[in-house]
Formats: sequence, structure tokens, C-alpha cells
Amino acid sequence: MFEALKREAWAANQLLPQYGLISLTFGNASVVDRDRGVVAIKPSGVAYADLQPEDMVLVDLDGRAVGHGSLRPSSDTPTHVCLYRAFPLVRAVVHTHSRAATAFAQAEMAIPCLGTTHADYFRGEIPVTEPLLPAQIDGDYEWETGNAIVARFASLDPSERPGVLVARHGPFAWGPDGARAAESAFAMELLAEMALATLRLRPDSSPMPSTLMERHFSRKHGGTAYYGQGPRA
Amino acid sequence: MFEALKREAWAANQLLPQYGLISLTFGNASVVDRDRGVVAIKPSGVAYADLQPEDMVLVDLDGRAVGHGSLRPSSDTPTHVCLYRAFPLVRAVVHTHSRAATAFAQAEMAIPCLGTTHADYFRGEIPVTEPLLPAQIDGDYEWETGNAIVARFASLDPSERPGVLVARHGPFAWGPDGARAAESAFAMELLAEMALATLRLRPDSSPMPSTLMERHFSRKHGGTAYYGQGPRA
Amino acid sequence: MFEALKREAWAANQLLPQYGLISLTFGNASVVDRDRGVVAIKPSGVAYADLQPEDMVLVDLDGRAVGHGSLRPSSDTPTHVCLYRAFPLVRAVVHTHSRAATAFAQAEMAIPCLGTTHADYFRGEIPVTEPLLPAQIDGDYEWETGNAIVARFASLDPSERPGVLVARHGPFAWGPDGARAAESAFAMELLAEMALATLRLRPDSSPMPSTLMERHFSRKHGGTAYYGQGPRA
Amino acid sequence: MFEALKREAWAANQLLPQYGLISLTFGNASVVDRDRGVVAIKPSGVAYADLQPEDMVLVDLDGRAVGHGSLRPSSDTPTHVCLYRAFPLVRAVVHTHSRAATAFAQAEMAIPCLGTTHADYFRGEIPVTEPLLPAQIDGDYEWETGNAIVARFASLDPSERPGVLVARHGPFAWGPDGARAAESAFAMELLAEMALATLRLRPDSSPMPSTLMERHFSRKHGGTAYYGQGPRA
Repeated sequence: MFEALKREAWAANQLLPQYGLISLTFGNASVVDRDRGVVAIKPSGVAYADLQPEDMVLVDLDGRAVGHGSLRPSSDTPTHVCLYRAFPLVRAVVHTHSRAATAFAQAEMAIPCLGTTHADYFRGEIPVTEPLLPAQIDGDYEWETGNAIVARFASLDPSERPGVLVARHGPFAWGPDGARAAESAFAMELLAEMALATLRLRPDSSPMPSTLMERHFSRKHGGTAYYGQGPRA
Repeated sequence: MFEALKREAWAANQLLPQYGLISLTFGNASVVDRDRGVVAIKPSGVAYADLQPEDMVLVDLDGRAVGHGSLRPSSDTPTHVCLYRAFPLVRAVVHTHSRAATAFAQAEMAIPCLGTTHADYFRGEIPVTEPLLPAQIDGDYEWETGNAIVARFASLDPSERPGVLVARHGPFAWGPDGARAAESAFAMELLAEMALATLRLRPDSSPMPSTLMERHFSRKHGGTAYYGQGPRA
Repeated sequence: MFEALKREAWAANQLLPQYGLISLTFGNASVVDRDRGVVAIKPSGVAYADLQPEDMVLVDLDGRAVGHGSLRPSSDTPTHVCLYRAFPLVRAVVHTHSRAATAFAQAEMAIPCLGTTHADYFRGEIPVTEPLLPAQIDGDYEWETGNAIVARFASLDPSERPGVLVARHGPFAWGPDGARAAESAFAMELLAEMALATLRLRPDSSPMPSTLMERHFSRKHGGTAYYGQGPRA
Repeated sequence: MFEALKREAWAANQLLPQYGLISLTFGNASVVDRDRGVVAIKPSGVAYADLQPEDMVLVDLDGRAVGHGSLRPSSDTPTHVCLYRAFPLVRAVVHTHSRAATAFAQAEMAIPCLGTTHADYFRGEIPVTEPLLPAQIDGDYEWETGNAIVARFASLDPSERPGVLVARHGPFAWGPDGARAAESAFAMELLAEMALATLRLRPDSSPMPSTLMERHFSRKHGGTAYYGQGPRA
């Protein structure tokens, strides 16, 4: 039961060190089965190299354990669940502490949309959340982290911006499946590195022209896309 | 038919991840057969690890498909074709989103000629194109990208500067064969990294003296070259 | 005799190049047997790849050789011994010249606590020692280096900050066993890299809010920890 | 004949890509046989992976070919020869275009002595040469490069500073054998990287105190050294 779900979540977790996004045991990926309301997520504090598909922990959309798992789920599980509840088209969530994206999060700065590499993945800047209030930090902290992300997307479309920076923390990314959520997390790090270098060359860089941004985003996304070999399975 | 052409294009594409210039499916390389007017180019959005020589897509110098290929060519194909039509000595074109060169492109800054490593490859700065107009972006965008490169080289010699930065986008490089076009793309990234660090140490760096630049360029290029073991095949 | 101790010290030394913290023969790790008052430490100037567990050198807590070792202990041995004497809960010490942490040490700047990655390991900034006086440098230099660390921790808890920067030199880290001391050294380098990038984006970055710092530190450390799969062996 | 000399030169050349100091075919290493006045040096423009010990080219201390080599020596051969003639204790010379050291050379800035990692290798800053005059560039350019290095060391000891930055070009390093010349080249890159990061954190960094510098240099070098396992063969 839930074997395919666990395998997809495990494969997404394996992509994170392959993409160079992970140090030590930081980070986690999950995938949701929308029909059955079950999420498979990385266990807390386990080394990636040791993970097996059957180690993935199952929780429901209230964050409660499903079945008799012997491992504790990631401490960030409530954040994942919160995003699944708020973003109905999201099927996978990834969290990393990748270096350049985390630097933007620590600086509480959005990653500006400076070129076509960015526009191939994000329609506009990669936003940063508002800081949590002390009461939110002392309360249900990980759930409130999810709420801060959802609040930031009140007027944004999570399908057009598959990721966010949590202030003082790091990046969360998502997508329609585990592989694409991991790819979004990788793109966030790549875009953060390029933005760091661009801002070093030209500290007052303005965002790219919107015509060019729209052209590139629509080249890869939506009904008029003409990049790639047609729709992915 | 065109087997050698496809193999050379495939080999040039394989060099891009080997040189560390590629993330995800970004980038593409092509090679032209001048006698028959046919270009072999990477298919769009295919992972480099999965590419086989026979996957290379054939197009003519109007960008129209040649033969019965089952794959779609790179979305940047019109840019490649435009360069082949304007630069008669170019036999191979490479496009990447390599990080440091892309940062210069995003900052819309040429890479200044700061030292002999640069002069070994480029006779002067690596230029950056003018931004496209909205009508060009909304029109035949990839063809107009090629036009912007050609316009930038109105008074420059593409044999003396085997690459360019497309504003807000990234580097294009070229050469007399696939391997040397890929080498030019690698050199652009190396020079961009060194220039970033040099400008950090000395933000007002002036270009290197022209006598030294000319000496190094001519050490490796043209009739008076004395670097290496003689002309390459 | 002391075979397990030598093996743990050897394994900690092996982690340093695996974590990418080591260039050439720089750096060293040691582990103490508190009951018997014996320290196993890397021999001086030996390449990591050539090290065998039996090469670890034994010294007592006065820094004197134990047994008939044929190799000379690390020249930093007196620093390690000084820390073991002053910090009773520390069982392993690691010293590296990792690049970003050494840059902070060379700048004589503490690594500020800028985000949750930092707070997962250190409760507050990573401190930097006061410079040694000429008489200390010309005297028992390596012992005085240890004294400078101990002086810096007069009002700090080494269990809450498992590392320090020695001014103009580089990082020392520690922990309850060899693996965790090496992990602290790795965390110091990671935090230094992220801080470097954060300070580049926002030179006047303030430390993270203390509520958030305390939440993250206590999520992983102490009686209320809920990260991971329970206490480690 | 000269088989051991060729093998030592070949091994030093192989260390350069292993140390990550080489891009493409840049760089070269040589070793001299003082008794017979013969230098073995890398052939010009050959890929490191293809090099065999027998490919090393032999020249005398006037830079003239020795024996019937089929390959052309490195175009930088006159610089190597010039250094061997001026620095009698030097037995091996290495030239690279390693990135951070080249950035300092391009900025025409010495690498300041900022911490103990530096003092373990260089007694004071790593100097940069004066720019060549146009007549020197147009004349015997590579020989004049050697002269500029020698002039810079008029009041410096090449045994205490085993390397130099050639202005607008890159680093040259040396040592008493091929392995230690390559190690000096690696140290120059490491020190340049650390200095870049230190100067980013504190642009007005002063050099380290001379007492500390002298202590560290003499810990590893000269009659009072106590680092390592005793004198190397």
C-alpha cells in the first residue's frame, strides 16, 4: 500500500543530494496522494544515503501518522501539509538549505527576475515571506511557516512561481510531481547564484523587461509552449 | 546520411556538461555542413545523458526540417541558422546558460579584456548585444536574437571574438568545428569568473595594455602563432 | 590498547577531507579517553590518504607522549589538550583551515547568526578569539592558542557553541564524539559561506530574531528536542 | 637518458589538474638537472590527459633544444630558463592560470599576508611584477617575463616566497623539486581564494602581525621547524 507514493517521495529526496542542494541531513521532500489524502515524507534527521523507499513516513492532511511507521516524519511536516491544503494543484513539496537561495532568505530579499534563465521557471521574482511573529514562533511553528507562505501567495499563482523563500530560513519549492518539485528547488539555487553575481556586477540591476519575461515563461509553460518535445507524462 | 555531421554535433553537445557549462536541459550545440546547407542541432528539452548521435535534428539554412526527424529541434534553432548565414567562416555554434557569463549578460555588461588568459581567446572585450525591442520579442524572437548578435558584430570580426553575450539571456559561442565552439564557450565562462573576481578586487580595473593583448592573441592565432604543436587538423 | 580510541580519531580525521574541509596536510582531529586521560591525535604533516588508525599518536593531558609512538603528534596538540582540560564535556576536537571560516578568522570577525541553519548548530554567533600578544606567540604558542579560546568562552557554553574562530588563523570545532566534532567543523564552513553571501547582499544584516534562534536551537538540542529519531548513541 | 628528470617533470605536470589548477591546456611545469644543465618541460598546447613522461621536451639553459625531440616545448620555456639561471636553489618551476591567483595578477595586486595559512608557505605578501614595457612585449616577451620576476626579487628571497604573480598574466611558483613547486602553486590559489573572501568581509584588512607570521613560517621552514615528521627526502 502506498508503495508507488513512497517510491516517488524517496526518488525526489534522492534528487536533492544529486543536485548538490543538500548538506548533512538538511532538507526533505514529500509527495501527496490527493485521492486518498495521504502524504509520503522523509523521516526526520536520517542521512540521505541510508534512505530506503520503505522508510518514507505516511501522514494524512491533518499531519497525523497513517499506519504503523517506526520512524518520525520530518519536523517540517506541518509546513508541507499546510501547502498541500492551500495549493490544490501542488503534488510534491521540497525544502532545502541550498546555499545561495538561503543567503537571499537570510537577507530577507526576494530573488529578482534578472534574465531568461529565471523566466524559464518563474513568472516574476521569487518572493520572500514576511517574518513570523514571536507568538507564531513559540506556537505551532512549522504550521505557521506554511501559513506565512500561503499568505505571501494571496495574490500570486503557485503554478507560475513554483517556490518561495522563507525569511531567515531557506527555500521551499513545489511542482506537479516529485521530480519537478526537485527541479524547481534546483532552479531556485541556480537563479540565486546568478542573481548574486549579477548584483555584484551591477548592484542597482533592474528586473528584466516584462515582454521578454513573458515570452520566455510562455515558451516553456501553458498552452502556447513550444520548448521541449511536447507535454510531459 | 549526415552521420558524421550528426556525430560532430552530438560530440559538441556532450562537451558542454563535461565542461560544467550546463544545468538541467539548458544549452545546445549545432554544426553546419556548408556544402549541403544542412545543420545538425540538439533536440529541444532532452537531457544530455540521454542524447544519441542519431537524435540530432537536421534543418536547412531556412530553419526547415530536413528528412523525417521524429524530434523537435532546439527552440533556439533560428538563432543558430541566423549566425551561419551571417558568419561564413563559422562551422559550429554553442549556446549555454553558464553561470558567470550569464551574470554578465544579465547585467548587460561586456566582459572586459583584463589579462592574457582572455587575450589567448578574444582580441578585445567579449561584447554584449543591444536589448531587443518589444516588437522583436513578440515577433520571430529567436531569429531576432540572431539579428541582434549580427548587428553587434557589424564592425567586429567573429574569427577574432568567438562569442558574444545576449543581453538578459546568456552566452553564444562559435568556432571552426564543434570542439572549438565548445572550447570557446568554456573560455567565456572561465574569463567571466576571472573578471568577476578581478572587478571585486579592483572595481575600476582598466583593460589590459593593447600591446600585451595583441602579443598574446597573435601567439595563438593567425600566421605568426607559435603556441601549440602547429595547425590543428 | 587504545585501539578503539585510535580508530575513532582516525575516522574523524578521514571525515575532514570527505567534508571538503582540508587542503594538503592542513588540519587535524583528536579524541580523548576521559577515564584514562589519553588523547589520540593525527601525526604532524602526514597526508590524509596515507593515514592508518595505528598512525594516530597518543599523548596524555599534559601533552606528553604515551607509549612508543614512532610519529610526532600534530604541532597543534597543545591546543587540543588545553581545550580538553578546560571543557570537561568535550570528547573530540577538530581543527581545519576551511576556506570561508578561515576568511572570517583572518578578518577577525565573528560569524553572525543570520538564519535557522546557523541556529540549528550554534546558539548565537560563532565567536572569534582576541589576538595573541607577542610574548604569547613567542612563548608556548600552541598552548596560548588554547588559552585564548578558553578565555573567549569565559561566559559562553561550549556545548551551545561547538566551535570558535582563532583570530588570523582558522576554525576549531568540538563535540561529544569524533563524528560530531567533524560535523561541527563542516557546519562552521557552511555557515561561513552562507554568511559571506548574505553579507554581500545586505552588508548591514542584523542577527536573526532571538525567538526564532531559540526555537531552532531547542528543536535539535536539549530536553525539548524533536528533530531526528531520538537521542543518538 | 634524462628519464628520471622527464618523469619528475611529467609528475609535476600531472599534479596541476589534480590540484584543480588547470583549465584546458593552460599551464606548464618543468624540472632542471643542475649538474647537466638540462630542463625537462611540458610540450606546448598538449592536453594533460594525453601526456606521457617521454613527451617532456628537453632544453638547455639557453633554451635550445637538447636531442631530437619531436614536440615543441611550452611557449613559456624562456621564462622557466630565466628563473633557473637567476635562482640557483630552484629545481622546479610551475606556471598556471588558476582562477583566484590570476584575478590578483589581473588586478596587479599582491596577495597580502592575512593569516597563518599564508605564513605557512610565504614569508610576507606574494609579490606582483611591474608591467612590461611595450618594447619588452614586442621583443623577447617570454624571456622578459622572467626578467620582470627576477627584478621583483632583487631584494626578496625566492626560498622564502616560492611564487610570484606576473602582472596581467598569472602565477608562477617554484620549489626544490617538482612536487613542492606544484604544492606552492596550489598554495597560491588557496591563499588567493581566502584573501578574496577576507577582503570582501573587511576591505581595509591589514597584514597579520609580523610576530605571528614569523612564528608560523619558522614552524615549517628552516632550522627551527617542528612541523611534520622531519626533513623530507
